[in-house]
Amino acid sequence: MATNFAHPVPHLTTALSGPLHHIESVILERQSQIESWFRCQWRNTQAPFYASVDLRNAGFKIAPVDTNLFPAGFNNLNPAFEALCIQSIQTAIETQAGTTVDRIVIVPENHTRNMFYLESVRVLRDLVEKAGYEVRIGSLIKDLEEPMTIALESGDSLELIPLTREGDTARAGDFVPDLLILNNDLSGGRPSVLEALEQPVVPPLGLGWANRSKSVHFGYYREIAAEFAQNLDIDPWLIDPLFRNCGEIDFMKREGGMCLQTNVDALIKQIRAKYEEYGVDCKPFVIVKADSGTYGMGVMTAHSAEDVLELNRKERTRMATTKEGQKISKVIIQEGVYTHETWGDPDTVAEPVIYLIGNNVVGGFYRVHGQRAANENLNAPGMRFERLAFDDCCISPDKHQSPDAHPNRFYTYGVIARLAQLAAAREKANLE
Amino acid sequence: MATNFAHPVPHLTTALSGPLHHIESVILERQSQIESWFRCQWRNTQAPFYASVDLRNAGFKIAPVDTNLFPAGFNNLNPAFEALCIQSIQTAIETQAGTTVDRIVIVPENHTRNMFYLESVRVLRDLVEKAGYEVRIGSLIKDLEEPMTIALESGDSLELIPLTREGDTARAGDFVPDLLILNNDLSGGRPSVLEALEQPVVPPLGLGWANRSKSVHFGYYREIAAEFAQNLDIDPWLIDPLFRNCGEIDFMKREGGMCLQTNVDALIKQIRAKYEEYGVDCKPFVIVKADSGTYGMGVMTAHSAEDVLELNRKERTRMATTKEGQKISKVIIQEGVYTHETWGDPDTVAEPVIYLIGNNVVGGFYRVHGQRAANENLNAPGMRFERLAFDDCCISPDKHQSPDAHPNRFYTYGVIARLAQLAAAREKANLE
Repeated sequence: MATNFAHPVPHLTTALSGPLHHIESVILERQSQIESWFRCQWRNTQAPFYASVDLRNAGFKIAPVDTNLFPAGFNNLNPAFEALCIQSIQTAIETQAGTTVDRIVIVPENHTRNMFYLESVRVLRDLVEKAGYEVRIGSLIKDLEEPMTIALESGDSLELIPLTREGDTARAGDFVPDLLILNNDLSGGRPSVLEALEQPVVPPLGLGWANRSKSVHFGYYREIAAEFAQNLDIDPWLIDPLFRNCGEIDFMKREGGMCLQTNVDALIKQIRAKYEEYGVDCKPFVIVKADSGTYGMGVMTAHSAEDVLELNRKERTRMATTKEGQKISKVIIQEGVYTHETWGDPDTVAEPVIYLIGNNVVGGFYRVHGQRAANENLNAPGMRFERLAFDDCCISPDKHQSPDAHPNRFYTYGVIARLAQLAAAREKANLE
Repeated sequence: MATNFAHPVPHLTTALSGPLHHIESVILERQSQIESWFRCQWRNTQAPFYASVDLRNAGFKIAPVDTNLFPAGFNNLNPAFEALCIQSIQTAIETQAGTTVDRIVIVPENHTRNMFYLESVRVLRDLVEKAGYEVRIGSLIKDLEEPMTIALESGDSLELIPLTREGDTARAGDFVPDLLILNNDLSGGRPSVLEALEQPVVPPLGLGWANRSKSVHFGYYREIAAEFAQNLDIDPWLIDPLFRNCGEIDFMKREGGMCLQTNVDALIKQIRAKYEEYGVDCKPFVIVKADSGTYGMGVMTAHSAEDVLELNRKERTRMATTKEGQKISKVIIQEGVYTHETWGDPDTVAEPVIYLIGNNVVGGFYRVHGQRAANENLNAPGMRFERLAFDDCCISPDKHQSPDAHPNRFYTYGVIARLAQLAAAREKANLE
């Protein structure tokens, strides 16, 4: 159980960290008030079953840029926090299932060759088993007729059992679960085998990308960040990425381009004003990405409307499709938040990813990449990056240390990630 | 956060471990069934706020011998499991308080010089603060009129504020808590300042030694062990210490002695029969101790009724009083369970102590002592012992390893400790 990791705490460019230091100080000082506020929020609005939240730490601001409600990467977490995950899974199942649960089916993505993803499913399966449940993997792969065993690099294996239904009851072979845990983001649509089951499915299907959109998520996040910032008397921009969205866009036909350009320019202008207010000497940029869907093809960085206009055919094709090959028709234009955390050499940027199970933060890891610019997205296809498990669980602030000391910086990450999970909780409440 | 401990796993005398190996195998095999059973038990009966459970591992049997519902020793736990404690405290307060809690008063023992105890209170205070509550220490010390600050060896300090009441509201100075956490076992009686408050007190006063008795606790434990053992198809004796109790005893006047001798002899006979059944080549013994009260003066080891008869005046005085100087009038005669775990050299015995917060196991430590016999109690006044924090949280079994591998042996400890906490939960339910 002992951790084998050296303390992986990237260096933060300190020239820019004035406002951040202020946020961290305020968060540390008001910790009991913040926790009290979260307790109240969670009492009113139940968190989704789990999440991973991508953060960017620019030194002058910290903000979530993506909230994944079907997280992979459990194999990136520090084994030292296994017990924390187990306990959180027990609590989340006990409070969310609404029924007595002993048998669970996990429904993963349809990958059979992405060994990294399959290791994550294995870790998730092991955690749920250790939490004291019987577990099977129920696959949505269409042409899978028999259970399929996949050997993993860890030496373990994963058995994918075709998920079927009889009436309103889902089953994996002869295993009839009391609960299904969805680890498939439904980018490919809502599978009929999961619709209107008598067994609860967590998170609910409505939180899949077939229904969810980032602009709705960040709309809720904006409300929450405003409320939180008001309580702490800080500028909400310090924790909230600005965004705009467009209606229908067809990158190939260049339809909707005017809307996109107008909004990119407007957003850049807004960001520039904020940079001037805080004396930030960086070039404003935005991220244009599919409003629904995970990491994927459709992500671009733009410093001006021209960057969008000048897309060549290849780039437009890349923007026009998700990883599932689906057409992107709606985009979100999000304020780009610089990554000013570096790991070792100054060109090696590090981006924190925080994991939650229910409303509990259970740790995280850094994505670290050497040849990526601070304004680009590390989580893109074909990107090679290292993963550094946090040596800290993000829930144990230490008032005896400085606001930017490691446990306190990680605590701040945990707070911001919980704000994002709260936004997801409001999305979920809105489905019900 | 990283642990600084080498894996402190004492050696278990293997010649005697046949039955234990069987228990550990069964517990590992039936883990999901066991966890399902616990979930059901906790749904029906809420656990006390916290507990520490002293276990004895004889190789052929493993059993709780003491369940402390006002645990000290939080400073003995592995800092690596701090997050697990924080999360468990959040869950326990959220589920047990029955009201919105932001402000908490911890009510400790009246010690001002027992630095080891005060460090434990400090760690408990820090954990509750990190869990996101405002905390003060409210003291029951009678002649304390002003707040008193005690400097600790850790460099930190503890402020003891006199606990007062106004009507039905308790307060520590001008701090009015929403909840009081009792860390005082009430050996000295129920303080009127805590009676019938409008604020909840956890654990309730009725679980203090002023009301509680070990024979009631082990009576409930016996029921629970029988049910658990039946489910697993094992002999309940393998996890349950036999016991008998006597009515009124006056050690000084030698009253009640006949009852004591009869019961010591009867219990020794029962144990001998069990030793014969399992081929255990050890001399049966019993522990005679106060039926109410913590560790203390009134603990003796007896191998026969003669051992009790032959007490000299000094020994009788020792047996006749608790650590608070109160007269012992009722005793429990408990099967002595050998300590067959050794640490380093074979004379150095090690006894596990498991900690729970609510129904969650959060780790533990070993009491280790070099000059103590395997049939004596390490937790006695004047005893010097080392404490070795567990490197394992006791909730993450590993089916890929042998049933006696470290995580699995610790998991078994966690299971047995939860059975004891369940017995305490039934005591608590019986108060309500």
